[in-house]
Amino acid sequence: MELVYKGKTKDVYDLGDGNYLLKFKDDVTGKDGVFDPGANTVGLTVEGMGKSGLKMTKFFFEKIEEKGIPTHYVDTDIENSTMIVKPAKMFGNGLEVICRYRAVGSFLRRYGMYAEEGQPLDAFVEITLKDDEREDPPITEDALHMLGILSKEEYSILKNRTIEISNIIKEELAKKDIELYDIKLEFGRIGENNEIGLIDEISGGNMRAYKNGEYIEPLELEKLMLED
Amino acid sequence: MELVYKGKTKDVYDLGDGNYLLKFKDDVTGKDGVFDPGANTVGLTVEGMGKSGLKMTKFFFEKIEEKGIPTHYVDTDIENSTMIVKPAKMFGNGLEVICRYRAVGSFLRRYGMYAEEGQPLDAFVEITLKDDEREDPPITEDALHMLGILSKEEYSILKNRTIEISNIIKEELAKKDIELYDIKLEFGRIGENNEIGLIDEISGGNMRAYKNGEYIEPLELEKLMLED
Repeated sequence: MELVYKGKTKDVYDLGDGNYLLKFKDDVTGKDGVFDPGANTVGLTVEGMGKSGLKMTKFFFEKIEEKGIPTHYVDTDIENSTMIVKPAKMFGNGLEVICRYRAVGSFLRRYGMYAEEGQPLDAFVEITLKDDEREDPPITEDALHMLGILSKEEYSILKNRTIEISNIIKEELAKKDIELYDIKLEFGRIGENNEIGLIDEISGGNMRAYKNGEYIEPLELEKLMLED
Repeated sequence: MELVYKGKTKDVYDLGDGNYLLKFKDDVTGKDGVFDPGANTVGLTVEGMGKSGLKMTKFFFEKIEEKGIPTHYVDTDIENSTMIVKPAKMFGNGLEVICRYRAVGSFLRRYGMYAEEGQPLDAFVEITLKDDEREDPPITEDALHMLGILSKEEYSILKNRTIEISNIIKEELAKKDIELYDIKLEFGRIGENNEIGLIDEISGGNMRAYKNGEYIEPLELEKLMLED
């Protein structure tokens, strides 16, 4: 089992059988000890974070698989904080796909002239490049196409799947009276058919979730979602 | 004649007959005395700049009108540095529409991971919000639609007219062996029919033009284009 990538919040190993193993770590993104799902740096380490993120990921990926939406998910080993996944090719050097239900965060920083903080948004999808140096710039469908990162057809599939998946997660949260404000997803071309599917993880670290107007930290979110 | 708006590079007067008068000033955008067409501040004052910009504007707007593309243009008075225009409604608080033939400037700052400096781009259109405070953020078709700034149909017309107009300007420059790298246009809803047309000005201050690999300053560009 060979380490092929050391990420901010997880490491990736080649299993040698065609699949890969993701090891979830206790590091979370943020700045100066404060959690920020959109940050490009590891801001703090929280014991149990890796396992918690994996439990959430298992829960959501299984819901998404049930609906017939393609993902890279194969299996999880909660005890060892690992997940087995199918190989996936990134779009370019990686994209982040954001689905928004409330105007907060970078959306508000960009479009605050036209939106009130917390204003409802109707599953609004935007894409940013994974590029720490250039602070993850937003990118349009036309630019993705022109730069050879995504075809127009792939863009359309990606956008539709983002809305489908985000709505599933929003509904699951709503069952616990939790409101999803926004979520960050990652996609790739999975397997030999290059099918566009969900990759990476889905946990509290990927989303902003609120209950009674209060932001819920990732570990707390997992407790609210998966215990009782 | 009533002053209705004091802009960075021109002032706007209401003529009282349904049309407006634009007074071109000698101020140009930039920073610390250095010209930058994308800057949000007046960086320097150059004698003759207003008149030079107006001559270019007259030249290009008349070419564009000849092709049947709607604009706000009515007439010019070069001696007094003024242009008479039809009334136009802005999209939201104003958009900048950029058409790119070479990867330079903010395009490269955003997408430098995928593009080489100076790489040819095929009349690539992008839109930014006029919002000095938020540094003119780029915006997608979906966001423009969702925020009520442009309908999907208007976006499509805007994009097509941007390419048509930019290609006309590119061809005019090419006649003098000058290459257009990129250009910034403004559009509005003109007259009672709210027809989408070109507004504002087209001069050296709106574009990056190069000859034999050397950038051409706005005043020099006007000389090369209109004197011979």
